[in-house]
Amino acid sequence: MDSRAAVAYKAGEKLTIETVQVEGPRAGEVMVEIKATGVCHTDEFTRSGADPEGLFPCILGHEGAGVVVDVGPGVTSVKKGDHVVPLYTPECRQCKSCLSRKTNLCTAIRATQGQGLMPDKSSRFKLGNESVKHYMGCSTFSNFTVLPEIAVAKIREDAPFDKVCYIGCGVTTGIGAVINTAKVQPGDNVVVFGLGGIGLNVIQGARMAGADKIVGVDLNPKRKALAEKFGLTHFVNPSDMPENELVPYLVNLTDGGADYSFECVGSVKVMRQALECCHRGWGTSVIIGVAGAGQEISTRPFQLVTGRVWKGSAFGGARGRTDVPKIVDWYMEKKIIIDDLITHTMPLDQINHALDLMHAGESIRSVVVF
Amino acid sequence: MDSRAAVAYKAGEKLTIETVQVEGPRAGEVMVEIKATGVCHTDEFTRSGADPEGLFPCILGHEGAGVVVDVGPGVTSVKKGDHVVPLYTPECRQCKSCLSRKTNLCTAIRATQGQGLMPDKSSRFKLGNESVKHYMGCSTFSNFTVLPEIAVAKIREDAPFDKVCYIGCGVTTGIGAVINTAKVQPGDNVVVFGLGGIGLNVIQGARMAGADKIVGVDLNPKRKALAEKFGLTHFVNPSDMPENELVPYLVNLTDGGADYSFECVGSVKVMRQALECCHRGWGTSVIIGVAGAGQEISTRPFQLVTGRVWKGSAFGGARGRTDVPKIVDWYMEKKIIIDDLITHTMPLDQINHALDLMHAGESIRSVVVF
Repeated sequence: MDSRAAVAYKAGEKLTIETVQVEGPRAGEVMVEIKATGVCHTDEFTRSGADPEGLFPCILGHEGAGVVVDVGPGVTSVKKGDHVVPLYTPECRQCKSCLSRKTNLCTAIRATQGQGLMPDKSSRFKLGNESVKHYMGCSTFSNFTVLPEIAVAKIREDAPFDKVCYIGCGVTTGIGAVINTAKVQPGDNVVVFGLGGIGLNVIQGARMAGADKIVGVDLNPKRKALAEKFGLTHFVNPSDMPENELVPYLVNLTDGGADYSFECVGSVKVMRQALECCHRGWGTSVIIGVAGAGQEISTRPFQLVTGRVWKGSAFGGARGRTDVPKIVDWYMEKKIIIDDLITHTMPLDQINHALDLMHAGESIRSVVVF
Repeated sequence: MDSRAAVAYKAGEKLTIETVQVEGPRAGEVMVEIKATGVCHTDEFTRSGADPEGLFPCILGHEGAGVVVDVGPGVTSVKKGDHVVPLYTPECRQCKSCLSRKTNLCTAIRATQGQGLMPDKSSRFKLGNESVKHYMGCSTFSNFTVLPEIAVAKIREDAPFDKVCYIGCGVTTGIGAVINTAKVQPGDNVVVFGLGGIGLNVIQGARMAGADKIVGVDLNPKRKALAEKFGLTHFVNPSDMPENELVPYLVNLTDGGADYSFECVGSVKVMRQALECCHRGWGTSVIIGVAGAGQEISTRPFQLVTGRVWKGSAFGGARGRTDVPKIVDWYMEKKIIIDDLITHTMPLDQINHALDLMHAGESIRSVVVF
């Protein structure tokens, strides 16, 4: 089948809109008509060439929503017509990780996904005679894509695609880090570094969990008003004080330190500040941001020996097929906000503009609709 | 009252046996006749001058057992004749930390303890006219010492002082890190770096908790046989392989990585290995060892984002007054081994010999009896 898609030919080049050929689903696979997709920093990270594991040519995109249009042999959990969100973190419910009940990092198709291929080691995309790589197992920058059955979450049919696509990555990553990874409880004090799309979702997750103080740290003062709508109680601009005073300031503001802190920037320097502003004895810092290749975090071990905990979160610790439909329900029930985060909506042929807006800090999230 | 004590006059000097004057207990304090005390690396760390917070002259020692000989006004939880273990981590049961139920790091007397003083900011020790500092709130290298009531654990009277003194630090630190900090569960795979006094106690803690594989990593092959007596199932000598092969070897040996690892060496390089040999998705590394002043741990944040957790443990996460008596019971009920760890027992005037044995790696633990 022909499909319109934004193709990334080479690292560093702009995406180009092409008609690609998409092969139908094989055993255990489903074909999805993507109706809308968010444009995320991770797509840009790979497009730019900064991602050492990036493979080209490929079809980027991993934050979509759409409709199942075909299923391969043996598929039982979804059928034609079902509304779904593609999952870059699948949930096979069979592997050691899924069965551990301790992690969401399903390993069933990890090797082939990292190679830009379907589980049978082939691609479903072609441009002319050339095979095109899948990306994060999703490739939502194509109107039609193929995914393993274990990598789609079935959602309710009244949810708008151009909003709930964001649950495929940013919303779940932020809210899930609070609820699944940190397990914030009522009365906890929380500090969030970086008030972009992830950070704002961390803030609304903290509000849902009943946190007391919800402190946001960002260099951009414009983010304060928006963050307050999501539950922020205190805004701190690091440029208002000398660098070495930020951590003591946050410790004081949170009555001894954060019960939980979240790093949503991707800076190893900020990751250290996030750990060190935690409360002695139990404060836990969760790394969500992705640091540049080769960069390392560091601290004095004394920080840990005196009770602070350093951990991380990927896809918000969420099991996609189980948790994504719940988060869609929360959106439909108005327990969480998404609309205010989607600052721009545009057709596929403007996708490079979405990347430009992200670079300029002028969007929280841009969504492409097919 | 006069008391024989080993006094540390100056950083780097040998201890000298002196008769010091010990003032009786003030309100909320108890005087304890120390019957036996272990000689721990931390005492040596301070004696040597490596501890930047060391204060001199002082009476070292923090791993003792003895009998209450006098109590000050207001003391209700212990009385004259009670057998006790001094606690360098007190348990006031009133401060934010104690009430949090999330940490054992009671803060009631932290400031003055760090200054080598009793909570009323004075010392009970004098040598001639000179005031002598307390050490870690214990100073068990003196036949008589004074402690706050909240810093003694009452224990059963049939427990031998020259064995259960070790529960005042090393035993509790190792076993507690497994049970309280890591919360190892039956079937878990555990890797322990460093098979000294702490590491061997981690191993018997892991055995108590029902761990499956209990892997010990040490450069000294002589430790294998002893460790097996405590529950070790696999011994790994890092010198048997190139340095960069140790972590993959341990990951393979533990079927994907350790569920829990414990660093009992005090090396920031080993701390990184201990984290990185943990299982993707959930493996947790616990730092117990004390690194040199100013040294820092580091790793790629990817290690945490993919589910590993980095934490630390002090005094085994144990609440002293609550947990130390239980561990004494475990020893008396033969649930844990202590006798094999106490390789040397000697009178006070040989205490410098105990330090020499420790340096030479010829002792696990030396105990001084009064």
